[in-house]
Amino acid sequence: MRHIDWYKDFVDLKYKPSKTDVVCLFRFEPSDKVSVVEAAGRIASESSAGTWTTLTKLPKTIKKVMATSFEIDGNFAKVAYPIEIWEPGNISQLLSGIAGNIFGMKALENLRLVDVSLPVQYTKHFRGPEFGIEGIRRILKVRKRPITGAVAKPKIGWSAEEHATIAYETWIGGFDLVKDDENLTSTQFNKFEQRVKLCAKMRDKAEKESGERKSALINITGETNQMTKRAKILHDFGFEYAMIDVVTVGMSALQTLREVCHDHNLAIHAHRAMHAAFDRNPRHGISMLFLAKICRLIGVDQLHIGTVIGKLVGTRHDVLDIKNAITSQNNKRFGSLNQNWNNIKPVFPVSSGGIHPGIIPDVLKIMGNNIVLLVSGGIHGHPNGTRDGARAAIQSIEASMQSIPLYQYARSHKELGAALAKWGRLRPQ
Amino acid sequence: MRHIDWYKDFVDLKYKPSKTDVVCLFRFEPSDKVSVVEAAGRIASESSAGTWTTLTKLPKTIKKVMATSFEIDGNFAKVAYPIEIWEPGNISQLLSGIAGNIFGMKALENLRLVDVSLPVQYTKHFRGPEFGIEGIRRILKVRKRPITGAVAKPKIGWSAEEHATIAYETWIGGFDLVKDDENLTSTQFNKFEQRVKLCAKMRDKAEKESGERKSALINITGETNQMTKRAKILHDFGFEYAMIDVVTVGMSALQTLREVCHDHNLAIHAHRAMHAAFDRNPRHGISMLFLAKICRLIGVDQLHIGTVIGKLVGTRHDVLDIKNAITSQNNKRFGSLNQNWNNIKPVFPVSSGGIHPGIIPDVLKIMGNNIVLLVSGGIHGHPNGTRDGARAAIQSIEASMQSIPLYQYARSHKELGAALAKWGRLRPQ
Repeated sequence: MRHIDWYKDFVDLKYKPSKTDVVCLFRFEPSDKVSVVEAAGRIASESSAGTWTTLTKLPKTIKKVMATSFEIDGNFAKVAYPIEIWEPGNISQLLSGIAGNIFGMKALENLRLVDVSLPVQYTKHFRGPEFGIEGIRRILKVRKRPITGAVAKPKIGWSAEEHATIAYETWIGGFDLVKDDENLTSTQFNKFEQRVKLCAKMRDKAEKESGERKSALINITGETNQMTKRAKILHDFGFEYAMIDVVTVGMSALQTLREVCHDHNLAIHAHRAMHAAFDRNPRHGISMLFLAKICRLIGVDQLHIGTVIGKLVGTRHDVLDIKNAITSQNNKRFGSLNQNWNNIKPVFPVSSGGIHPGIIPDVLKIMGNNIVLLVSGGIHGHPNGTRDGARAAIQSIEASMQSIPLYQYARSHKELGAALAKWGRLRPQ
Repeated sequence: MRHIDWYKDFVDLKYKPSKTDVVCLFRFEPSDKVSVVEAAGRIASESSAGTWTTLTKLPKTIKKVMATSFEIDGNFAKVAYPIEIWEPGNISQLLSGIAGNIFGMKALENLRLVDVSLPVQYTKHFRGPEFGIEGIRRILKVRKRPITGAVAKPKIGWSAEEHATIAYETWIGGFDLVKDDENLTSTQFNKFEQRVKLCAKMRDKAEKESGERKSALINITGETNQMTKRAKILHDFGFEYAMIDVVTVGMSALQTLREVCHDHNLAIHAHRAMHAAFDRNPRHGISMLFLAKICRLIGVDQLHIGTVIGKLVGTRHDVLDIKNAITSQNNKRFGSLNQNWNNIKPVFPVSSGGIHPGIIPDVLKIMGNNIVLLVSGGIHGHPNGTRDGARAAIQSIEASMQSIPLYQYARSHKELGAALAKWGRLRPQ
């Protein structure tokens, strides 16, 4: 083949993806003067082997490295990529192809990477979660109810000593986990090493007093080697988790830390700060669904996916679709692509952001009980403080799991009553 | 102070930023029912110490960790952050604050991080570029003209042997650099080690024959430790650069590799694949200007910033603003924030994407001669092949620098003539 047309030759509506193809679902809006077919072809071209002009020489094997737009339906196109063009185990390279230059093409007004389907020949080079939902439940010895956690609030400003005291109150109130906020790493007013040390001491005290397992999601976010050192410190102080802001550190460091956490037997709690910079506009960018799948593949054990209700965006449809993608073994739903996860474990979905005891039953109704529920301002803002706040949240979960209306349960549970008095819901809804 | 109002207390229009504050410029659109002032306050709150409800306890030092919206002008707000809340040398943490949760707040319809001004107390913890523009010119022994480079096209599909042969033709045609494409790392059909080895051999041959310095931008994109190994291989084979897809690997790994490249005396060529997922929509996300400043701070030596003309988006205004931000020592322009770069070197701006000999003078008129000019399809598509294509591009640069119209210069330069015959511009414009 002497010449390639850099869009026509990348469209074949009769093509059936092979079992080893990587398949992407894109939503696209062509620019003026660009047809739908040309736009779909250019997406496949620019994200695989394309260029903008005829070339004097071509590789003999060019056909083997070309992607194919094989299904076009309104503003949606499915593109298949030969497995041979992807380096095994290199997520950043995958992104540089299917999520790279194409977002900046003049031929398109808008482009969204909606979903991906990864063949086992691709996924087999990744660990996936070390523990997954079952493993985390085993660690924390919590069988059926949601895992509970709280961030010390305000986000930042507490000293390491104050932080550890708040952690203790949270644990003693009945919570399983305390969590750092996404922008707390190591600062003059709260140094990482000191926070870890003091929290470990308080955790031991809380475990002894409560007879329950207690742990912390301490934020190691930073440069890769710094994170590696911090993960080791967490392990040395007996913590089961490392928390990472996975988007702001990036996928290369996340892959590295996945190995480090394997070596230190640590679960990864993944915060997604910055995701909404590229996933909020439904017409452009990268979907949270895609990001969640990549995080599962690399192997985080817990991932923030939204709350539906609360201070942050995320529709019911989207949040449940993401939940399904990270918890099912073989998922196809709401028009998204099929994904066979094979032996890759499910990720524990995390809901957070503006949750208080008064809305916990609503959150659980939507999300189910197999979630990590972070209630932070919603416990630290309790009129009687953090400990009672945690109790109120636990009571709200109990009521919800027993299908008892909150206002009724609150009659015999004063901490819940005080919470509902502050945040509403004392009467039947 | 017992209570904090999580937006009012984060707005102070009389506040004057201190010399140590980090200052951000945001463009924002409040949701219905949220006032402009409330929206500006919530941005400052959520990106520093805020939460959504009153708290029972507050740190005594809360005031020291709160950000302040101090200037609101239409849809724009400037926010000042105390230096104490940022960990020295931790870019990911900075992003988790000023570019984190705020993009997903329901209180806003859209939010764009337009620009940042970093005080010397922040920038002093970073290396910046190892070589910068002057250092790169010294390495390549090119004084005034643009640095020339080409990607082997198609993007992928060549074997390592074919790749090295194309590199040789590119160099012998007169180009300084050959470059990998963003989605080429190490695959069955073109393994990294083999490509490096064969390109080094061809580079030695080309240098000997031409008497000029020749180098390559070979893509090490991958997991952090993999990149570290590959950087060392590049050094061992005498290359002066490592190429990294900085967005798809992420800022944590880029910081790590900046240290590795320092140890191996390697310049960093930064490809920005994926940037348009979050910087294309002018109403939401993160600007390329911001990303470019962060890349300069960490220390890349060359950065893709757009071409204005060509296949990828980027207005003249935006591209020149970014160019100014990465090349000036003290920049304030087009309404963006002031940035004193102190002793941090300038970054070589890279223009690429759809450039051919016929439009090189237009590109240089906009961008100046102090750029790295990548002409890829525009040389490999030359009717007589890569070597003549490179010659045609060099001739176009010569004509441009001597202010001779291309159609006139082409009369005595047949390679340029053949290029213009293919891509137009044989007559006066």
